[in-house]
Amino acid sequence: LFQSQSKVAKLLQLKAQLGGDEGKHVFVLKTAKGTRDYNPKQMAIREKVFSIIISCFKRHGAETIDTPVFELKETLTGKYGEDSKLIYDLKDQGGELLSLRYDLTVPFARYLALNKITNIKRYHIAKVYRRDNPAMTRGRYREFYQCDFDIAGQYDAMIPDAECLKIVYEILNELDLGDFRIKVNDRRILDGMFAVCGVPDEKFRTICSTVDKLDKMAWEDVKKEMVNEKGLSEDVADRIGEYVSMQGGQDLAERLLQDPKLSQNKQAFAGLTDMKLLFSYLELFQVTDKVVFDLSLARGLDYYTGVIYEAILSQTIPASVSTPAEQNGADEAGVSVGSVAGGGRYDGLVGMFDPKGRKVPCVGVSIGIERIFSIMEQKAETSSEKVRTTETQVLVASAQKNLLEERLKLTSELWNAGIKAEVLYKKNPKLLSQLQHCEETGIPLVAILGEQELKDGVVKLRNVASREEVDVPRADLVDEIKKRTL
Amino acid sequence: LFQSQSKVAKLLQLKAQLGGDEGKHVFVLKTAKGTRDYNPKQMAIREKVFSIIISCFKRHGAETIDTPVFELKETLTGKYGEDSKLIYDLKDQGGELLSLRYDLTVPFARYLALNKITNIKRYHIAKVYRRDNPAMTRGRYREFYQCDFDIAGQYDAMIPDAECLKIVYEILNELDLGDFRIKVNDRRILDGMFAVCGVPDEKFRTICSTVDKLDKMAWEDVKKEMVNEKGLSEDVADRIGEYVSMQGGQDLAERLLQDPKLSQNKQAFAGLTDMKLLFSYLELFQVTDKVVFDLSLARGLDYYTGVIYEAILSQTIPASVSTPAEQNGADEAGVSVGSVAGGGRYDGLVGMFDPKGRKVPCVGVSIGIERIFSIMEQKAETSSEKVRTTETQVLVASAQKNLLEERLKLTSELWNAGIKAEVLYKKNPKLLSQLQHCEETGIPLVAILGEQELKDGVVKLRNVASREEVDVPRADLVDEIKKRTL
Repeated sequence: LFQSQSKVAKLLQLKAQLGGDEGKHVFVLKTAKGTRDYNPKQMAIREKVFSIIISCFKRHGAETIDTPVFELKETLTGKYGEDSKLIYDLKDQGGELLSLRYDLTVPFARYLALNKITNIKRYHIAKVYRRDNPAMTRGRYREFYQCDFDIAGQYDAMIPDAECLKIVYEILNELDLGDFRIKVNDRRILDGMFAVCGVPDEKFRTICSTVDKLDKMAWEDVKKEMVNEKGLSEDVADRIGEYVSMQGGQDLAERLLQDPKLSQNKQAFAGLTDMKLLFSYLELFQVTDKVVFDLSLARGLDYYTGVIYEAILSQTIPASVSTPAEQNGADEAGVSVGSVAGGGRYDGLVGMFDPKGRKVPCVGVSIGIERIFSIMEQKAETSSEKVRTTETQVLVASAQKNLLEERLKLTSELWNAGIKAEVLYKKNPKLLSQLQHCEETGIPLVAILGEQELKDGVVKLRNVASREEVDVPRADLVDEIKKRTL
Repeated sequence: LFQSQSKVAKLLQLKAQLGGDEGKHVFVLKTAKGTRDYNPKQMAIREKVFSIIISCFKRHGAETIDTPVFELKETLTGKYGEDSKLIYDLKDQGGELLSLRYDLTVPFARYLALNKITNIKRYHIAKVYRRDNPAMTRGRYREFYQCDFDIAGQYDAMIPDAECLKIVYEILNELDLGDFRIKVNDRRILDGMFAVCGVPDEKFRTICSTVDKLDKMAWEDVKKEMVNEKGLSEDVADRIGEYVSMQGGQDLAERLLQDPKLSQNKQAFAGLTDMKLLFSYLELFQVTDKVVFDLSLARGLDYYTGVIYEAILSQTIPASVSTPAEQNGADEAGVSVGSVAGGGRYDGLVGMFDPKGRKVPCVGVSIGIERIFSIMEQKAETSSEKVRTTETQVLVASAQKNLLEERLKLTSELWNAGIKAEVLYKKNPKLLSQLQHCEETGIPLVAILGEQELKDGVVKLRNVASREEVDVPRADLVDEIKKRTL
């Protein structure tokens, strides 16, 4: 019947003639490496998580936009530093050179420049792609969701930055994933610190990458990398070591402003002054119990210019949960903490796209949703409550034969009245299998039709859980179902 | 500051040394050909359309799944007939050969086979990719949404098929896009008809493709293609011509069952018998006013095995609207009708993925959403009602200076109480610009703070539309805002 089937058959024949794999084409039935399907149960959890996040974004007055899954290759070029090798390119099939988006931030900046938008508060929830060496066992996917919130525009210092942190705080609270911390630092403080410690200018970025590993590696190993691989002197590394062990709040910012060397560095001074201001706003937003100024935080991406932050769950996650986890660059299997959000200020990115280099200051946050999904899935697994994957209110059923047409007619009436209704696609299903379908999928009500009910102009309405049955006049059925499934 | 900026600079220098384009790198600021961004207004419309469609799918008891944007290339191979050339391949960067999904049906079938699922009712809304020669002016995008609903499982004939048509009917009614028709035919009737007319077996599919052009081309031109390009005799073509001009309902199915030649063809007989049954269910679903049995309908895709259908808007669409339109294969610029949904039965597709060839019967429908978006956008354009892109209920404002901290504090209180609130990110914004922000974005309320209000423990609540102001005790503010923005 299928042309394509016969084509496949011909190909197989051909292959057989050529010898080789015994004429058997081994078709591998799987998803692409590093990707996964979401089944209905996972989707129900995903939509619950999204709805909490979207509510928060909307509460903060954000609009939403969408950009294509692929961009011109050159749009993504030169934005991700050493990670550029992880970008998926499309095959050159004649036409433009294209790549799958690596994050939602660069497409956002491209969108602002293309449409000459100078201020917007937007969120964007979509999949991004990284040709990472995945090892799904280490919790990395090659296709995964990001939930981004960004504020673009020329505003007074640190107000939008504080709102981004407030948003992370609200979302992690509402998702109820246990205790968490939000680490904050500033690119300018890092740069100033490197300068003061005696790191040569051209090594700032690469030393930054090394510092970024402090959440996974001991200081001793980080220092080794600095000295042996990156060529710093022991002295310089030790001076960095002193700084990156510091943690605190507004007090630490104040203390470092007293540090004669650091405060004389222009960059560090600006960063520390802003950090002080940021904490004063965070105080007003009542989030300082979870936010910590941490000099070891050094996010990898090239485009950050000011404040940077990262949120980390404190709870110990069993290795089994951390498996299908997060992709933001800071995770290992079975580790006790997980980065679930990150972001910062990137004032130069839009200007890289503008023909005249006009800058649009931006600050934003990205929620790394995959690890959150995993934790929620694990929670659902261990909870006694069953996750429903449909919202069906009533099954239209019959115990007698030859009532298919009557069942279809009633189902149609219910659909027309906006009731979520199902009917089994069998001429004469057994009542038991109809009730079983309700048990399995959590449908709370059954509307049962029989010869007698049809004669009397009623429908027998059965509560699946309590097994109670009552005859409802057909004209009242819709209201009765609505009342019972509020 | 940016390492990447300096990299780009170096590249530009290099290019300049090599001569060529006068040292100027012409960076083209655009989206990839055939794709588009959705701005906040378009997103608001898109989400409205999606919510109508998802409600309908849920009303019919569907669960949802999600599959990756790319599949193994061989998963998509041999499923789309002549259209296979439109598949986007990913570049071979070492690893698996991958392609972007061309529709949601083949990934669905792969999902069923991979997970050994033999019955499910699911919907899936996601983007698909076709490397079509786009001409966006002709309304074709290379990235576009599909909204699919499918029923998989071994059921009694025509019941799920009828539900798919009911769903198309409900959705097109609720979207309120004007009158429409749903054409129905059956692959088996087409094949039987071709056999009876004397088309050689091996030409069924290619003649089917030609018949498929009848909605865009006159019969005379279709006939010419059959005779001159596909090598049919005039006689055979004329016999086909007689059949494909037929339209009707259950009556036509009955009449054709009386056709001695057609009814003796096994395939045609099965198709016509099912068509009769289908219409009896459509009668119960009260949708026969829009459904027409049309022997000229011949959808292109290879995988259909039984009933096929296509929904067409009757209204005349101005050329400007049909521009950013639909991709289901049946559209031209400025034409008066547009196919906005299509589908059918594909009982063999899952079996193509199963190692043992086990079949899972499937029937489904795909809503082609892009043209619907365009019509809704056009409607919004001409309507006086403004599309809101945020849901903000209240702006926290002040007419006086030095109240930033108080504004932030109140805003935070409102967020904590679940109120959608905004505050301008300026130390001392003018009241006028705060009110203007409300006018522009449709925020209905302003909560105004001043020295006096702070002293009195109240907030001045202003209705933006009526300009009415009233002092509300701070403790009652949340309730008052909720009451007014129900």
